[in-house]
Amino acid sequence: MKRICYSPIGVVHSEFKEKINVPIQSVFSSKKGIIEIFPEFVEGLNDLDGFSHIFLLYHFHLSKGISLKVKPYLDDVERGIFSTRAPKRPNNIGLSILGIEKIEGNKIFVSGIDIIDNTPVLDIKPYVSDFDYRQNAKNGWFSNKIDRKEYLSDNRFLD
Amino acid sequence: MKRICYSPIGVVHSEFKEKINVPIQSVFSSKKGIIEIFPEFVEGLNDLDGFSHIFLLYHFHLSKGISLKVKPYLDDVERGIFSTRAPKRPNNIGLSILGIEKIEGNKIFVSGIDIIDNTPVLDIKPYVSDFDYRQNAKNGWFSNKIDRKEYLSDNRFLD
Repeated sequence: MKRICYSPIGVVHSEFKEKINVPIQSVFSSKKGIIEIFPEFVEGLNDLDGFSHIFLLYHFHLSKGISLKVKPYLDDVERGIFSTRAPKRPNNIGLSILGIEKIEGNKIFVSGIDIIDNTPVLDIKPYVSDFDYRQNAKNGWFSNKIDRKEYLSDNRFLD
Repeated sequence: MKRICYSPIGVVHSEFKEKINVPIQSVFSSKKGIIEIFPEFVEGLNDLDGFSHIFLLYHFHLSKGISLKVKPYLDDVERGIFSTRAPKRPNNIGLSILGIEKIEGNKIFVSGIDIIDNTPVLDIKPYVSDFDYRQNAKNGWFSNKIDRKEYLSDNRFLD
């Protein structure tokens, strides 16, 4: 199948400048950040201020190479990449659910940021609880792995 | 910013052959489908069978053109594209949460399919309720729009 190409619609601003010591998921982050949307796309932000959360899709721009099996941050066992949220994916797309604090012009001020500074933004979608909640989901190898409120990235995906 | 290019990792098989009369979200679909992963990526599916749901990221391959304001299926008012889940996005990435029925070789048998046949697949991530549920989310213009169990696409995004 032929390649599919996208152009970023914006860029992430955050205090995380390196791949290490970044919250590994938004739910483990108490930090705020800014999603800057390029001026030509600002009209697309209309009506977003009525929502409390967004799905942000972005490109893991610092990820190097592809691994079909990885040891994800919450485990010491190799797992299939599609059963993890790790980088080194065949298509390096990241997904975060972020809180909207406010929107001013082309800037979305967000909470719960778990994304590295300067990450290119691909898309924004509203989080809609009627669409996006699955009761009684089975969480596979993640089950019983989460026993505290903060998890930060270590050095396992530096290279 | 420079363009970002991806190569599909697989393809969707579903009974929906056209853009019309497709469930507009997975929660409105009682239909099943198959996500076929290309053989070179099958190792990445390891451990996914422990999960009940996936995020599927895919390319809206039949979408034509870009609109920063659209009348989404559940409304008759123009909304900013980033406050909707409609196609015609600047980067035409679709996101569905699908149920896993079973995985056999390179095929994921899924429930709740809301995707057109032959759609290119970009990525698969496990849905993890500890990560992906936001209590008390504010659902913006979607609030009070959903009053039945089935919504199908009409002709508004045919061209």
